[in-house]
Amino acid sequence: MVSAMRDIGELTERLRDFAAARDWEQFHTPKNLVMALAGEAGELLAEFQWLTPEEAAHIMNDPRAADQVRSEIADVFLYLTRLADVLHVDLLGAAADKLAENERRYDAATYRGSRSKAPRLT
Amino acid sequence: MVSAMRDIGELTERLRDFAAARDWEQFHTPKNLVMALAGEAGELLAEFQWLTPEEAAHIMNDPRAADQVRSEIADVFLYLTRLADVLHVDLLGAAADKLAENERRYDAATYRGSRSKAPRLT
Amino acid sequence: MVSAMRDIGELTERLRDFAAARDWEQFHTPKNLVMALAGEAGELLAEFQWLTPEEAAHIMNDPRAADQVRSEIADVFLYLTRLADVLHVDLLGAAADKLAENERRYDAATYRGSRSKAPRLT
Amino acid sequence: MVSAMRDIGELTERLRDFAAARDWEQFHTPKNLVMALAGEAGELLAEFQWLTPEEAAHIMNDPRAADQVRSEIADVFLYLTRLADVLHVDLLGAAADKLAENERRYDAATYRGSRSKAPRLT
Repeated sequence: MVSAMRDIGELTERLRDFAAARDWEQFHTPKNLVMALAGEAGELLAEFQWLTPEEAAHIMNDPRAADQVRSEIADVFLYLTRLADVLHVDLLGAAADKLAENERRYDAATYRGSRSKAPRLT
Repeated sequence: MVSAMRDIGELTERLRDFAAARDWEQFHTPKNLVMALAGEAGELLAEFQWLTPEEAAHIMNDPRAADQVRSEIADVFLYLTRLADVLHVDLLGAAADKLAENERRYDAATYRGSRSKAPRLT
Repeated sequence: MVSAMRDIGELTERLRDFAAARDWEQFHTPKNLVMALAGEAGELLAEFQWLTPEEAAHIMNDPRAADQVRSEIADVFLYLTRLADVLHVDLLGAAADKLAENERRYDAATYRGSRSKAPRLT
Repeated sequence: MVSAMRDIGELTERLRDFAAARDWEQFHTPKNLVMALAGEAGELLAEFQWLTPEEAAHIMNDPRAADQVRSEIADVFLYLTRLADVLHVDLLGAAADKLAENERRYDAATYRGSRSKAPRLT
């Protein structure tokens, strides 16, 4: 598809136009978008819920499943980008700040391979 | 914070380094990351669940709530970016394809202001 | 349908038999069931996400939507009951304990009509 | 705790009284309760997200984790019961109908041990 996109800024603009062209801004309230985002995260869960860890690790080798997973990931990203726009949150800036905070909080030497502490990004 | 980030590619790299430095790649399986992503989407829901639509629309005017919302949005984005990396999915490319598909499927003239049809991005 | 059920105990038994008859206990691990439960909660979100509060309040007046909502609520309850069984958690006992805790924590006089505090069950 | 509860009907009544005593019925709209339910399902995910299948299978042997899991399961059940009450859905009846439907749809002989088909309750 001829749908290349340069960056999050361009995606944000395209989503804004998409909503405006359909007069759907009225539905894209923060509360509704948060629900839609969580609903799409739930659909992503459904792709993985019955797989063993091994099967899940190789899911992208199955073309049909790979398409489905890619599509669900896209859905989450579309709603996340639209939500961030509506709330005037800079996605990359917010992520950078949070990651910097985590780099400090989870000192690499202390937490190395740690299983006693939840290994997390956030 | 001095944590500016250029693009999704740089964020992907930083998250990869973050996981490697702590030997946490072992925990960042697709299945686990999908769960973490959905869990963070749930925390975002919790920020909005008792608000009226009007309160939700103005949530960013409350500095404490705004910080919290920005932080939860960041969490979702961090896990989404990490998941996409682990599964070799190009976030922007997947979003561009999905949006192009939706632009065709939900023809602007037909769906304009439509309430009978779920107004959606995906 | 001739599917009346007396209580949670009977539902638990029926789900146990259902899984055993299909040799599906192998898939009903705690981790998988938690994912399935959250996935079904996501489908329930999807039924409500674009509705105004008023539309949501009257959703059961629309027979088709009512069937869908009832079916999604059933899905959540089925997975919750199965999960509780697999983890040996007594659903009613756990709920009773939590509610008693909340009755103490959220003193009725103090929290009456309170909007400053999240009005919650838990 | 002296919080024994006989059945879902009694739990429903207790939750109704709990909300009324605090004038919280105004917050317990279908849309808000669905969000709260999904948010609690997300907290349940968080308890399991970094565990191996083996660790997850033995989570109830760890008293602190067991308490936490039992409490999160209770939260989901409380919101599910409250939501069903607000929407006038009979939880056991809805579950019985759905299970009967699944018993027909997933014929035991055909689906026995099947991995090609998602092994599911719903």
